[in-house]
Amino acid sequence: MVILKKIDEVRAQVKEWKKQGLTVGLVPTMGYLHEGHQSLIKKSVEQNDRTVVSVFVNPIQFGPNEDLESYPRDLEADAKLCESTGADIIFNPEPEEMYADGFVSFINMTGLPNALCGLTRPIHFKGVCTVVGKLFNIVTPDRAYFGQKDAQQLAIIMRMVKDLNFDIEIVGCPIIREADGLAKSSRNIYLTPEERKAAVVLSKAVKLGQDMIADGERDAAKIVGEMKKLISAEPLATIDYVEMVNMDTMQSIEKAEGHVLCAMAVKFGKARLIDNFIAEL
Amino acid sequence: MVILKKIDEVRAQVKEWKKQGLTVGLVPTMGYLHEGHQSLIKKSVEQNDRTVVSVFVNPIQFGPNEDLESYPRDLEADAKLCESTGADIIFNPEPEEMYADGFVSFINMTGLPNALCGLTRPIHFKGVCTVVGKLFNIVTPDRAYFGQKDAQQLAIIMRMVKDLNFDIEIVGCPIIREADGLAKSSRNIYLTPEERKAAVVLSKAVKLGQDMIADGERDAAKIVGEMKKLISAEPLATIDYVEMVNMDTMQSIEKAEGHVLCAMAVKFGKARLIDNFIAEL
Repeated sequence: MVILKKIDEVRAQVKEWKKQGLTVGLVPTMGYLHEGHQSLIKKSVEQNDRTVVSVFVNPIQFGPNEDLESYPRDLEADAKLCESTGADIIFNPEPEEMYADGFVSFINMTGLPNALCGLTRPIHFKGVCTVVGKLFNIVTPDRAYFGQKDAQQLAIIMRMVKDLNFDIEIVGCPIIREADGLAKSSRNIYLTPEERKAAVVLSKAVKLGQDMIADGERDAAKIVGEMKKLISAEPLATIDYVEMVNMDTMQSIEKAEGHVLCAMAVKFGKARLIDNFIAEL
Repeated sequence: MVILKKIDEVRAQVKEWKKQGLTVGLVPTMGYLHEGHQSLIKKSVEQNDRTVVSVFVNPIQFGPNEDLESYPRDLEADAKLCESTGADIIFNPEPEEMYADGFVSFINMTGLPNALCGLTRPIHFKGVCTVVGKLFNIVTPDRAYFGQKDAQQLAIIMRMVKDLNFDIEIVGCPIIREADGLAKSSRNIYLTPEERKAAVVLSKAVKLGQDMIADGERDAAKIVGEMKKLISAEPLATIDYVEMVNMDTMQSIEKAEGHVLCAMAVKFGKARLIDNFIAEL
């Protein structure tokens, strides 16, 4: 495995592979990799001849008061995890390599970002779409892997690929959880021991919502209401949102039917954590 | 030569060519092809093993009061011109093929579109960038050809390719003119015989600006002022703008130096015509 810093180096290697008829998978990440990312890399290694993992804390997807500076980084540990999981390249560019002087072009979307996380993070998905579009053009993968934990991001990337005709298969992978249910996240490191314990309420709320649906409940307000009640009972939790939307349009729904996403963002001290479940009803 | 209406058909053919190691050129057009387009197709046929000409009147680059409906179309004549010039595919999709239900993704730019034509056509370049990005992803050409007549468009596409890392060489081609100097344009068909005669003032203004620079004049206001005076003397001409800007940033300049674009848009009756010259000083 090699760590490459330059766009041209990645391009040259991928072109070499393509000449040999090899398929390429891309796993875009911001690094500080955990078992969630690892499951994406594993899947890519299974499905493709070669796998590129990008490790890039993308400045343009962070708002002015967000955690760009403090976002955790550990390239050495990331490299070990990638190598042991079978990745072939880590692409780890400097911000200047991705956003040269005079950079002015963006990929953006009307509609899907104006919901859930997009409401409190107004420039976030514009930054995500732009960097992912760039990575697609640099790596030209056959397949790209995204976690279902960032469900709105997954929906947005799928829409972008369809709308802009990227010839890439998007593979969504399930949420990976700690033993007690907390979804794995690089941001879990922000949690104090007390907050860490309290944060399990998120996965409990997910379980509650899933159980209500399994029991036949279809009233979105009722399901979301019960989930909010459960989370609010935890004194360290501050709800940003809990919502039920259509997974393809991100529009709120009154009745749980079709391609349903039930998603939440909740703050515990410095950490803003997200969790969700998807249902096909 | 074949006319293809479906994205998947174009993709399949291009993949076949790429497997054989052939290079592909793309000439994006809105059809009603004239010798200007033909010069782009010729260049592509010279430089590539295969050439795709897209003929698509792109609805999202027209404003609500612009000429989308009346824009001239003649696929039969276009096909003849493409075939005789050596093109291999005309890609002629229906609008629904390019913009399916739920389409919400756009490529846009801060900076470069906020000048010249972008000021009176506020959504124009967003539509251009988006459709060109889509065509790039559908055709995946090695090279793409754009006329220098649409100089701001050429600068914007070059910037987009750089910023978003499209692995495509952009080839700019010189303006092709009628015998009396009028730049070839599909929109010249809107001109009445009187307006057609009057419109020659555009190329005369271009010549005047070029001559002043050749004589050592570098004061942008003075050059533009003389050009405006010449155009204003023509009663059928209504100036939209005459401006001198830096070609790479589209910022106004006071002194003609560096990569200079001197561009104009002038109305003659229903027709809004553009012309320009570029200088490296």
